[in-house]
Amino acid sequence: MRYGLVGASGRMGQEIQKAFAEHTLCLTVDINGETCDDTPQVIVDFSNRMALPRTIELCRLHRAGLVVGTTAIVQEDIELLRKLGEEVPVVQSFNFSVGVNILKMVLRQFAPYLEDWDLEICETHHNKKKDAPSGTAILMREVTGRNCPTHSLRMGGVPGDHSAFFANEGEVLEFTHRALSRSVFALGAYRAAQFVVNAEPGFYSFEEVIACAPRKSSSL
Amino acid sequence: MRYGLVGASGRMGQEIQKAFAEHTLCLTVDINGETCDDTPQVIVDFSNRMALPRTIELCRLHRAGLVVGTTAIVQEDIELLRKLGEEVPVVQSFNFSVGVNILKMVLRQFAPYLEDWDLEICETHHNKKKDAPSGTAILMREVTGRNCPTHSLRMGGVPGDHSAFFANEGEVLEFTHRALSRSVFALGAYRAAQFVVNAEPGFYSFEEVIACAPRKSSSL
Amino acid sequence: MRYGLVGASGRMGQEIQKAFAEHTLCLTVDINGETCDDTPQVIVDFSNRMALPRTIELCRLHRAGLVVGTTAIVQEDIELLRKLGEEVPVVQSFNFSVGVNILKMVLRQFAPYLEDWDLEICETHHNKKKDAPSGTAILMREVTGRNCPTHSLRMGGVPGDHSAFFANEGEVLEFTHRALSRSVFALGAYRAAQFVVNAEPGFYSFEEVIACAPRKSSSL
Amino acid sequence: MRYGLVGASGRMGQEIQKAFAEHTLCLTVDINGETCDDTPQVIVDFSNRMALPRTIELCRLHRAGLVVGTTAIVQEDIELLRKLGEEVPVVQSFNFSVGVNILKMVLRQFAPYLEDWDLEICETHHNKKKDAPSGTAILMREVTGRNCPTHSLRMGGVPGDHSAFFANEGEVLEFTHRALSRSVFALGAYRAAQFVVNAEPGFYSFEEVIACAPRKSSSL
Repeated sequence: MRYGLVGASGRMGQEIQKAFAEHTLCLTVDINGETCDDTPQVIVDFSNRMALPRTIELCRLHRAGLVVGTTAIVQEDIELLRKLGEEVPVVQSFNFSVGVNILKMVLRQFAPYLEDWDLEICETHHNKKKDAPSGTAILMREVTGRNCPTHSLRMGGVPGDHSAFFANEGEVLEFTHRALSRSVFALGAYRAAQFVVNAEPGFYSFEEVIACAPRKSSSL
Repeated sequence: MRYGLVGASGRMGQEIQKAFAEHTLCLTVDINGETCDDTPQVIVDFSNRMALPRTIELCRLHRAGLVVGTTAIVQEDIELLRKLGEEVPVVQSFNFSVGVNILKMVLRQFAPYLEDWDLEICETHHNKKKDAPSGTAILMREVTGRNCPTHSLRMGGVPGDHSAFFANEGEVLEFTHRALSRSVFALGAYRAAQFVVNAEPGFYSFEEVIACAPRKSSSL
Repeated sequence: MRYGLVGASGRMGQEIQKAFAEHTLCLTVDINGETCDDTPQVIVDFSNRMALPRTIELCRLHRAGLVVGTTAIVQEDIELLRKLGEEVPVVQSFNFSVGVNILKMVLRQFAPYLEDWDLEICETHHNKKKDAPSGTAILMREVTGRNCPTHSLRMGGVPGDHSAFFANEGEVLEFTHRALSRSVFALGAYRAAQFVVNAEPGFYSFEEVIACAPRKSSSL
Repeated sequence: MRYGLVGASGRMGQEIQKAFAEHTLCLTVDINGETCDDTPQVIVDFSNRMALPRTIELCRLHRAGLVVGTTAIVQEDIELLRKLGEEVPVVQSFNFSVGVNILKMVLRQFAPYLEDWDLEICETHHNKKKDAPSGTAILMREVTGRNCPTHSLRMGGVPGDHSAFFANEGEVLEFTHRALSRSVFALGAYRAAQFVVNAEPGFYSFEEVIACAPRKSSSL
């Protein structure tokens, strides 16, 4: 796969280069300027919304798909991305963790079958994290449609654990996600890029990417 | 709900009477004979396959639905139950644990999205259990379609824990079921009976029962 | 071992008889009266403080040791038991769970080495339990000497889980106790009875019993 | 604290500099040579045994204590370190994880009280790890004195989890350690350095360091 990278020198840009190590970085955009050695099949942008207009321009220019994980984008940006999706495949999400997205899908689909069970959510994060409960825990509550008790532990350097516990008189079901490192989002971006290279034009969520069977690198 | 119970005096019969405590037991079948005070809406049979012909006869007689959890039944019995399903609703399963069935459904549906993650299964049971891995662990492996490493712990009086762990470089997903007591199956039978009372004739699996939103007792 | 049992017909009395099944019940005290077939080596009393004077009398009469788990006893009763301890071995505790007592001992001894780690406690009990945090969680906090965040989950039929989590920037330590059933306290009483049969006169805590290597039944 | 660092430019050297960030690095030894700006109070060496003679020389020269975590050292090296311990405090260990050492201490002390409980050990590591069970799991078995079943999971990027489970008929005790990152050993080295700065000459294990209440940085 030949890919382009917006924000190549940032922390997230470094993580992405590690996750895409077996592939060819042929276009970079950065505060210091641009490089372009070849035509990318997909452009990855986890930088900031200021960069977005140029990113969209480059996708059009190279007819490259787009994976965009910029977190501060607004409705107006989404509209521009939808429009780009008419020409090339675009994957947009605020959270590129495969595990968190699957946890969300499991809870959305199965919580209705467990309505007569008790439900509580626990999340643990490092002690530098200010907000509680975490954004992901709030999302978990939202997809279950239940305003259940939620416990937030703030301890040491824990990257981030989330659990939903369902229990009735005779049994307990536990659905847990644990982040191991910051490489999570870069690995998700990689999965999205694999998807984009073979997809029809369109505007896709990361859940839609996951719901396609994973493709092997060799098939790209 | 008015219900009948085959094998009323056995251990499982006792558990079922506890789980159905708010409802009216109006028909019993046992080695010592039968009692019948009223027309049951549903008959519950977790006894043994010898009792099955009479159970089926009683369902026809009273136009009562059937919940059957007898574990030793064979294909020939299944055929008889299917035929009964043309007249009344019949729920048949070898495992009436809601949690184990949901775990199975989650794994069947989401394991394909996690093909490039490692998968291992752990199960823990009391030290009297002879077989390893447990039947449920084998079933978990089957629905994932992956012959993954499976670890069996045999310790003290643990009723039964089952976990599937998926991991990639950056994250871990854990799906765990824990049985708390032997009331599990009786509670599942209760859920199936609630379903039967309102269902159209048919031959149903317990997964189909679960996939219907749970009904409140009051609506029966 | 020949043992006596005060409150033989109560729920706890039944559990104790199960845990002592291989031994000889030769004396019973109950609201309905007393029976005595032989001289007990130890008397077990988990009933109520009204029974205590007669229990003490019987210990003196038979020169039998005592295991007493009555929860509502007061300082005045303790004094009577101390006095009895001058003649026979007496084990008194408010909690005869081996696991909970070991958890307490581990935390008391090792929490001081983890003063610069974060500490949080989680406990989960069935949804019928009114008080939160549980008495055991409060005890765990007391032995660590730290007023740490404590999370109480109330779910389904969970008999009782308690966890202490310590974390620093790079690692997590978890100490967890899980009750499986109500037989816990009867098994602890059995361990105490084994101790009493071989012990010198004295007034012992259950921690002191645990701190002796467990004796095999055969040696009694 | 003024400290010296042998192997300053290596991966472990980098981690140590992060963990000691608030303190003054005043001496470095590396393949490229040595620097020395001031007299160190303690020298830290996690490099390789080739460096050890010069490290010992420098400790003598500066009357500095030593924290040595080099893993390939042999009995002959230990003798040299013991001799150095007659002049300055020396802490030597093959594993500077506080958590793993506490887990070991807990198991060594409490396993004898749980002889009549079942015991099984589980450990999980990333899928690049070749050996199973892990060295730490083998150590856990050794300190319990029981050759118990041991389960090794090899999954994704898990840095390293170790659990000991004890169970009897009515309860379960779990002691778990989880490594979050490679900073673990550097943090342990920091704790050892804090100890050394205030200790009498001697040859100490890391367990002995832990068994002293942690000192606050301010007291150094």
